[in-house]
Amino acid sequence: MEFSVSAKLGYRVQQPVPFVFNVQARRFAGQEIVSEALHIDPPLPLQDWTMPESGNRYVRVTAPPGGLQVSYQARVRLDHPTEDPGAVHEVPAGELPLSVLTHLYPSRYCQADRLQRFAHRTFDAAPPGYQRVATICNWIHDNVDYVSGASDELTSAYDTIVQRAGVCRDFAHLGIALCRALGIPARYVSAYAWRLEPPDFHAVFEAFLRGPSGPGWYVFDPTRMAAPEGIVRIGIGRDAAEVAFCTQFGAMEFDKPEVSITGPDGAASATTRAVRVQDA
Amino acid sequence: MEFSVSAKLGYRVQQPVPFVFNVQARRFAGQEIVSEALHIDPPLPLQDWTMPESGNRYVRVTAPPGGLQVSYQARVRLDHPTEDPGAVHEVPAGELPLSVLTHLYPSRYCQADRLQRFAHRTFDAAPPGYQRVATICNWIHDNVDYVSGASDELTSAYDTIVQRAGVCRDFAHLGIALCRALGIPARYVSAYAWRLEPPDFHAVFEAFLRGPSGPGWYVFDPTRMAAPEGIVRIGIGRDAAEVAFCTQFGAMEFDKPEVSITGPDGAASATTRAVRVQDA
Amino acid sequence: MEFSVSAKLGYRVQQPVPFVFNVQARRFAGQEIVSEALHIDPPLPLQDWTMPESGNRYVRVTAPPGGLQVSYQARVRLDHPTEDPGAVHEVPAGELPLSVLTHLYPSRYCQADRLQRFAHRTFDAAPPGYQRVATICNWIHDNVDYVSGASDELTSAYDTIVQRAGVCRDFAHLGIALCRALGIPARYVSAYAWRLEPPDFHAVFEAFLRGPSGPGWYVFDPTRMAAPEGIVRIGIGRDAAEVAFCTQFGAMEFDKPEVSITGPDGAASATTRAVRVQDA
Amino acid sequence: MEFSVSAKLGYRVQQPVPFVFNVQARRFAGQEIVSEALHIDPPLPLQDWTMPESGNRYVRVTAPPGGLQVSYQARVRLDHPTEDPGAVHEVPAGELPLSVLTHLYPSRYCQADRLQRFAHRTFDAAPPGYQRVATICNWIHDNVDYVSGASDELTSAYDTIVQRAGVCRDFAHLGIALCRALGIPARYVSAYAWRLEPPDFHAVFEAFLRGPSGPGWYVFDPTRMAAPEGIVRIGIGRDAAEVAFCTQFGAMEFDKPEVSITGPDGAASATTRAVRVQDA
Repeated sequence: MEFSVSAKLGYRVQQPVPFVFNVQARRFAGQEIVSEALHIDPPLPLQDWTMPESGNRYVRVTAPPGGLQVSYQARVRLDHPTEDPGAVHEVPAGELPLSVLTHLYPSRYCQADRLQRFAHRTFDAAPPGYQRVATICNWIHDNVDYVSGASDELTSAYDTIVQRAGVCRDFAHLGIALCRALGIPARYVSAYAWRLEPPDFHAVFEAFLRGPSGPGWYVFDPTRMAAPEGIVRIGIGRDAAEVAFCTQFGAMEFDKPEVSITGPDGAASATTRAVRVQDA
Repeated sequence: MEFSVSAKLGYRVQQPVPFVFNVQARRFAGQEIVSEALHIDPPLPLQDWTMPESGNRYVRVTAPPGGLQVSYQARVRLDHPTEDPGAVHEVPAGELPLSVLTHLYPSRYCQADRLQRFAHRTFDAAPPGYQRVATICNWIHDNVDYVSGASDELTSAYDTIVQRAGVCRDFAHLGIALCRALGIPARYVSAYAWRLEPPDFHAVFEAFLRGPSGPGWYVFDPTRMAAPEGIVRIGIGRDAAEVAFCTQFGAMEFDKPEVSITGPDGAASATTRAVRVQDA
Repeated sequence: MEFSVSAKLGYRVQQPVPFVFNVQARRFAGQEIVSEALHIDPPLPLQDWTMPESGNRYVRVTAPPGGLQVSYQARVRLDHPTEDPGAVHEVPAGELPLSVLTHLYPSRYCQADRLQRFAHRTFDAAPPGYQRVATICNWIHDNVDYVSGASDELTSAYDTIVQRAGVCRDFAHLGIALCRALGIPARYVSAYAWRLEPPDFHAVFEAFLRGPSGPGWYVFDPTRMAAPEGIVRIGIGRDAAEVAFCTQFGAMEFDKPEVSITGPDGAASATTRAVRVQDA
Repeated sequence: MEFSVSAKLGYRVQQPVPFVFNVQARRFAGQEIVSEALHIDPPLPLQDWTMPESGNRYVRVTAPPGGLQVSYQARVRLDHPTEDPGAVHEVPAGELPLSVLTHLYPSRYCQADRLQRFAHRTFDAAPPGYQRVATICNWIHDNVDYVSGASDELTSAYDTIVQRAGVCRDFAHLGIALCRALGIPARYVSAYAWRLEPPDFHAVFEAFLRGPSGPGWYVFDPTRMAAPEGIVRIGIGRDAAEVAFCTQFGAMEFDKPEVSITGPDGAASATTRAVRVQDA
């Protein structure tokens, strides 16, 4: 399926301020960038860099005093296989690729170390594999209210599990923390998300499981607000601390980002199958 | 200078338990491994992996019921240039290699985002560069008591800055968090540390600065317990969550690790010069 | 029913240290002290005080260098009416005696303010009154593991609700915090507790409800470890911060307290009726 | 000196909501209420209660759907002796009245138990007594920024000591927590505060010390925003959790409170003497 995504970001600064943006779609087997354009106004020299271990794409620009407009458009073709959830299993610790161990560690917003007992008490009885992660997502959906303004940039999974309210970022953090507490590697994903209302940058998470074609990453959205087959990945990281769409190094004012994504015509109902990321 | 390091680790398990060890010295330009040996008793198949972005070396073994002994010995030659601290400067955000941005993010134990105001209030007046980081280390040394047992594996920089007691791990976390809060990339380093008493695994941190030969990582030890020129690096990571010397996936009992490091004869006084890591 | 209680406390100090003890049973309508004796060895001048608003009894002694032994024995007659739980209701906020509002406030270990949403989501559907508080206790019993050493003196209800392990003190704190979050006044009670195994000081809580004979305090023990009709009250307070059995003002060493309580012969099964405190 | 205070509070509710107000000035030896008037519009039956242990005055009213206006005016004569700060000493733990021990305990927002080491490290060297508490206030003033919006109703002393920003409530909490950590009883005071700009309810704290006329409570304002001789006390409590000027039990909308206080003509410079509360 092919999607058109766009983001418009506006800033005003009083003195030169370096900005680092991470708004471009990642390139990988299952996510082909058919065309894309990044415009900076005023035109300024750019530095870009793609992080080898994640494929995240960063652009840095130093804005002179005045306004800065960043706009990104892309056509992106997603081709992620879907699989029978019942055929997607957990990978025992002794068989996990050592390269994914990183995604078992606790991180700033995902204190898996402190949620061990809760996770085991609550989810040990769930069927292992894709279905356990889906059970986690259902639990989050049923026990945490989606409330704009109920959380802030300091809010972590430890808080959300008590306070029971948050936004997509908090839902993803809690899902990640619970997976890691159970020994399932999980990572944070920022994305353009089809059918998300209102349109905005979205946050979901991926868990590392083993399906019919081998081990790999599977996407989960505990908010249930976006169509899992229409997630255009921007950045992956341990948690939100690592995939801000904009990091600036100085005082600035900003406009609310304008984000859009359009997909194929015809109302696709959200898939109930496991969506696997062709990540290689 | 050449150092001999060794570690002996002992475990007992009741059922098969996978272990991942990160006790081998990293290999990099300034740290040459002259010889090394890793023994597992009973002899078991090993899987090893070196993380490309860090050079950390991991070994996995699945222990059968009974005892597991791991012993590692190595001769390591360190050749880190030292520089005049006054010639080591901070790198402006607009000039930082994009690859080190990761080490500005807050992490599980280093909540730099929550220490911004404290860091700026306390260290903005210090001379920038190596000396500012040294000022941070001096502040930690003077304001935090080194007390075994005063902290645990949940303790983070946020706690330590209030509770004012901890061990090497806590000292390093606080140093890292304060550096990041000021825009200085910093990372956690586990190590064999010469002259550390009593001998044990040690934790220090590295800050990214720019010296006479360009930008790079410089080592700091806010405990002042080890000789900075005698740090044999094992692992680097965002914080302690990422460089455990042993991660096990199941119940086990363990013995206290036996760690040793011997260096050249002759009492070297700790250098007062900046020690730069030849990291490439 | 009549109970014999005793406590023996031993300390060693190097220099004069003031101690404040709160180990004597409170005196109130439903708890008659038939006889009691408090011995201090060496014999030292005592200061005592009964707090008007709580009836808690405090004794202060300044121990000279050397050993200090405190022993307390009492025979206590409890006469608490029991009522049909279905006839014990909540008191609307507009009708609560203004004197109990204090027990709605968040306190050090009972951060009711942070548990509002969780409490309402989880317990709004329970039948109001005694049964709602019993539902809270059942939830705690079923979702929190009783594990010695899983918590410490810094652990609060906010932690316990995530970490899911603790001791009687943590169980009581969580019960109190959840009640307050729902508008039910609740207070912490330290006690000698009949049938508690192993014998020790115990912690339960009381909730303010309205039964057939008017509004009053009802006892709850979410650990289910003691017989509710055999709770000999020592101190009441907002939480454990206010009812330590010993507060000392200086360095000391202490022995494990020896606590005992014996009750009437014959195996009484724990009552399933509401136990009301004759508190006036 | 005589002061005129007033407060106007406005609310709108959709359904009957009980409100409890604590806006009336306390009556005690050093604070004489010359005249006062409390008006509720619409006129509604009131319940009032004065808490024996604090003297706090509470009024409850159940507002019917629609608007609720509460206005309070009073003329209050303050007569607090001032003393030479150098003659105001700390009271050793063995000599503290047992009735003030309550104000040594940690509370919701004043986690004195977690600040022990910081407090001792930072303030042990200060001259004991009034001057040590003044040193604490100076430290807070110099190290914490007064920033509206930097804290919220969840913010505690533990947070403020790290985050270094807050409002009067946070300043008072930190002062209280540090005093208690050092063994100095301290309590939270809500007040009308002369010369506070802009006028609002204010928060200060009182510490228990011993002056020339015996032990008693002395007022401290670490914000330095009000004149210490012009503090008209409303409520005292362990911390802000206990002295809200309004507690409501249901959904409501509110207007910003209008608070005023006027004092004697002539610009009084703030006293540098210790202001003691005639509290008996």
